[in-house]
Amino acid sequence: MSEIREHELVIVGGGAAGLTAGIYAMRYGLEMVLLAIGGPGGQTATATVIENFPGFPDGITGAELIMRLGQQAENFGVTFESAEVKQIAPEPEDGRWRLDCGSTEIVAEAIILAVGASPRRLKIPGERDLFGKGVSYCATCDGFFYRGKTVAVIGGGNSAIEEALYLSDIAEKVYVVHRRDELRAERILAERAFKVDNLELVWDTIPAEILGDASGVTGIALHNKKTNEDSEIDLDGVFVAIGYEPNTSFLEGLIELTDGFVVTDQRMRTSQPGIFAAGDVRDTPLRQVTTAVGDAAIAADSAYRYVAQRRSER
Amino acid sequence: MSEIREHELVIVGGGAAGLTAGIYAMRYGLEMVLLAIGGPGGQTATATVIENFPGFPDGITGAELIMRLGQQAENFGVTFESAEVKQIAPEPEDGRWRLDCGSTEIVAEAIILAVGASPRRLKIPGERDLFGKGVSYCATCDGFFYRGKTVAVIGGGNSAIEEALYLSDIAEKVYVVHRRDELRAERILAERAFKVDNLELVWDTIPAEILGDASGVTGIALHNKKTNEDSEIDLDGVFVAIGYEPNTSFLEGLIELTDGFVVTDQRMRTSQPGIFAAGDVRDTPLRQVTTAVGDAAIAADSAYRYVAQRRSER
Repeated sequence: MSEIREHELVIVGGGAAGLTAGIYAMRYGLEMVLLAIGGPGGQTATATVIENFPGFPDGITGAELIMRLGQQAENFGVTFESAEVKQIAPEPEDGRWRLDCGSTEIVAEAIILAVGASPRRLKIPGERDLFGKGVSYCATCDGFFYRGKTVAVIGGGNSAIEEALYLSDIAEKVYVVHRRDELRAERILAERAFKVDNLELVWDTIPAEILGDASGVTGIALHNKKTNEDSEIDLDGVFVAIGYEPNTSFLEGLIELTDGFVVTDQRMRTSQPGIFAAGDVRDTPLRQVTTAVGDAAIAADSAYRYVAQRRSER
Repeated sequence: MSEIREHELVIVGGGAAGLTAGIYAMRYGLEMVLLAIGGPGGQTATATVIENFPGFPDGITGAELIMRLGQQAENFGVTFESAEVKQIAPEPEDGRWRLDCGSTEIVAEAIILAVGASPRRLKIPGERDLFGKGVSYCATCDGFFYRGKTVAVIGGGNSAIEEALYLSDIAEKVYVVHRRDELRAERILAERAFKVDNLELVWDTIPAEILGDASGVTGIALHNKKTNEDSEIDLDGVFVAIGYEPNTSFLEGLIELTDGFVVTDQRMRTSQPGIFAAGDVRDTPLRQVTTAVGDAAIAADSAYRYVAQRRSER
């Protein structure tokens, strides 16, 4: 039989949202544990340099920011545990939640889901090695580094075209490489893209390899699926925009999801009482460290109010 | 005749929300100006020490955080202007907005309102001198410093009782000083307050003076309005919770407000197209630097999308 423990609050996820929620929750006096596989991390930790997080005028590496946040959470007494939640189920009758973590089971009054989302990878040669050296999954984060340069966006959905349009304001030239012969993006976005002089659509084409050297990305090798022709384009950067994969398969059937992302109201409440969400896992218009920490503060505040209310009813 | 200038975006307010919106807007390539009376500042700048802003494990003073944010905004080329907006009105027919700043008029495609809100003051002796030395307007921000100590909360509304309940989990003893003989707070909150052993309600009483010495707050002088008796209580801290005053009188009749706060959706859109809001001025469940910067990133993203759409329609 597995060990069963009780906590007032369980935070699931050790990225910027989970750590910030932990800081707030400890300050609110909640008795809690933070579950994170392998300790603090998340998408933030993978960022080479973050220039738009307030308070760091010279920028900060993602790893350094997460290290500082992890230290801050520790200073407030946040307890970390390396565990993966496999399932969450309601406790019969008492309104609490049971988290199945394999060897451990935890019963909690409240849960903050901060499990993040991962950008989908192309899974082609060069992608992993050149990540942070010209390969990016976030134009809002990294587009600014490409003033006057040439970049490609991979994808054909709304977010790909939005990123391409945004990059066309900054970069000298933007290629959009799309596997089909029409865009999946909304017509209004597609029409805007067609009008932009420095934006070129490359149809029916899949990326075969991201090319680079010690200095970073130098180009991309392409394959046209209709003509079977191979080609190369010289580039300074590649933006992969084929969607995000929220880490929410264990939540299916439990709370309301939209395309796998957790739906919340402005107080970060999900469709189940006592379960809150923060950060990239949310169905949210923007995924940034700034938005993750804002979400997290509100989620912790809401969780505190919820737990305090439950306490007073006993 | 006053000078008329044109900008794509005008950000009104130089606190954490306004500055962060400026950083994002510059990175999005928007042509903009930030209006702030007397430069960077806002509520953040008044905080003695901020322990819950991510990335600063040893805490940071509000002044230092705002200085760093102001520097960061400057690095990205944000232009500051010391101006007060007196009125905003629609431009006839072209969908833009005209900001009347007295000697200057600005016509803008989009506006981000980040004018903040100020906590209401008691306006009694000692309050100003002891601010940051035991006088606080935010239990979420400062409550943590009062573990095992004695504090008073001034006020009788929802936020006063919520702060008192929160502080009762941390402090040894919490007095709630209220001018009437019943609470304005919701019954459910009031009932919770009545049940808490270390929370004492002081009815019909107004604070006359906050007492202190070089080390900070030492007590409070009270006046009972019914009995006309004067008394003193020894204290380590005083939390003033008599509401926030949003700086929005110039917005009345223009956009939807709730108790003076700006109503937005999750994309920070107000009831008027092209006008967005971020930070304490919003009708929001929590007013923190974390939430302000999260709002600001989304508001800048929404403003960018709006301006880009308008550009493409021309």
